[in-house]
Amino acid sequence: MADHPSFTITGPHDFRLADHDPSLKPKIDKLAAQARTAAAVGSIAERQAMMMAADHWAVLVVFQGMDASGKDGTIDRVFSGVNPAGVIVTSFKAPSSIERAHDFLWRIHQAVPPSGRLGVFNRSHYEDVLVPRIHADQIRLQHLPPELATGEIWKHRLEDIANFERMLTRQGVVVIKFLLNISREEQRARLLSRLDVPDKMWKFEPTDLSERGHWDRYMMAYEEAIRATATLHAPWHIIPADRKWFARMTVAEIVADRLEQLDLRLPQPDAQMRRAFGQARTALEKD
Amino acid sequence: MADHPSFTITGPHDFRLADHDPSLKPKIDKLAAQARTAAAVGSIAERQAMMMAADHWAVLVVFQGMDASGKDGTIDRVFSGVNPAGVIVTSFKAPSSIERAHDFLWRIHQAVPPSGRLGVFNRSHYEDVLVPRIHADQIRLQHLPPELATGEIWKHRLEDIANFERMLTRQGVVVIKFLLNISREEQRARLLSRLDVPDKMWKFEPTDLSERGHWDRYMMAYEEAIRATATLHAPWHIIPADRKWFARMTVAEIVADRLEQLDLRLPQPDAQMRRAFGQARTALEKD
Repeated sequence: MADHPSFTITGPHDFRLADHDPSLKPKIDKLAAQARTAAAVGSIAERQAMMMAADHWAVLVVFQGMDASGKDGTIDRVFSGVNPAGVIVTSFKAPSSIERAHDFLWRIHQAVPPSGRLGVFNRSHYEDVLVPRIHADQIRLQHLPPELATGEIWKHRLEDIANFERMLTRQGVVVIKFLLNISREEQRARLLSRLDVPDKMWKFEPTDLSERGHWDRYMMAYEEAIRATATLHAPWHIIPADRKWFARMTVAEIVADRLEQLDLRLPQPDAQMRRAFGQARTALEKD
Repeated sequence: MADHPSFTITGPHDFRLADHDPSLKPKIDKLAAQARTAAAVGSIAERQAMMMAADHWAVLVVFQGMDASGKDGTIDRVFSGVNPAGVIVTSFKAPSSIERAHDFLWRIHQAVPPSGRLGVFNRSHYEDVLVPRIHADQIRLQHLPPELATGEIWKHRLEDIANFERMLTRQGVVVIKFLLNISREEQRARLLSRLDVPDKMWKFEPTDLSERGHWDRYMMAYEEAIRATATLHAPWHIIPADRKWFARMTVAEIVADRLEQLDLRLPQPDAQMRRAFGQARTALEKD
């Protein structure tokens, strides 16, 4: 199966986003990659069914990335084919007025999947250390007491995120984080196609262009966030995303691998249950 | 106003529950204490109205204590008189099946008050480092993967609670925690009166008696929880609770004091708003 160790960040060390090439040339071609993606999706579906039965573990898959980096498409391709009863996708948009009256992790925590389920976040709590960092007016919308909205706030939020994710993993929630790492050039091409191809036009938003103008600041904020929150228990995976088919295969294989590492066993009946089974069999046979 | 520093624990140090006398003899009599309670409740009501207007801070008051320690009565006396639009009381009972399928902080986080509001917890996340610690079957109900339900779990939960409370305080939620510290003898008297006085009988539950049998183990679990989570930003207050009127006064004054320390200011109009006010005045005068 997968072997993508170089994409996985498990500690702060000396992580630099610039070391990760968004258009890394894959060693396989598109057709072979699509076959591997299908195999990985099948494995995810199988393991997810066991997770539901065992009802001990939950899995949370977080997707971050710039506009047009392929989050929606990747979620569609990797998790279609899994029983939707076991998958909960949450897309985090700009916070509502109720959400803004609470701490930034409040809406996130509510959406964490229960045991047995696979939760998928399309954007996440990481938006709160990206967007308001670049747009200062956003932080003013968050009801923070002025004395708490200091320069320390990003360091504190990143620390609080790391602690939150550690708490989740200790309570049985496996956390897997992906950055779909697209290049500035590829984003330009994808945004242009949203302007040109009628069926893609609905996806274009004028803010896509203004956000693009802050590219370098977003990259710095991402780099700092990944350094502060990449851990052994909740690693980041930096996915070369300029080729959609390669990104999808890589994501699918990393998720499948992680599920295979879980000690998933179907619940086995104990002695008392086996005795009850005997009685049930007798009753059914006499029926 | 209040001066109860000896009840306040802000660090782990060498806290011992045995050093805190539940039947500490007050320096004032009941009538004087009731007058001071009324004054403190008035101050809380006034400050809470300012909190609502400023809409920056939230306050979370946590009550813990053994059965019959006076949690319900204290909440009633201290927060009646405050505008109920600004107060949210949450009583945490045994977790539901949906709650048990999530991490233990999931239902707690949902109930944290939004900005401007005063939240009151009647029992809290601390139950999850008390009850399942004494009743091992409770931890098995929590869907934890077997490899995570180890001896480390209490230490981890206490660390996660301390981190959770620090996150809340950084996001503008003031956390105030009370242990209503009742003696074993006073609990006996109060439980007996629940059996004898018709109007109190509805409060008696058979489990009260079995829980009482675990008194010493509860005291040890409380002591360890307080050591691990008493901090400057989220202190514990150990309230001598054998005299209800003294406990209520002390709680009311500590809450009032903490609210007075907040820099609460009614929002002031800026230059732009003042100009709009001028136009509004002209329009109204011509009406």
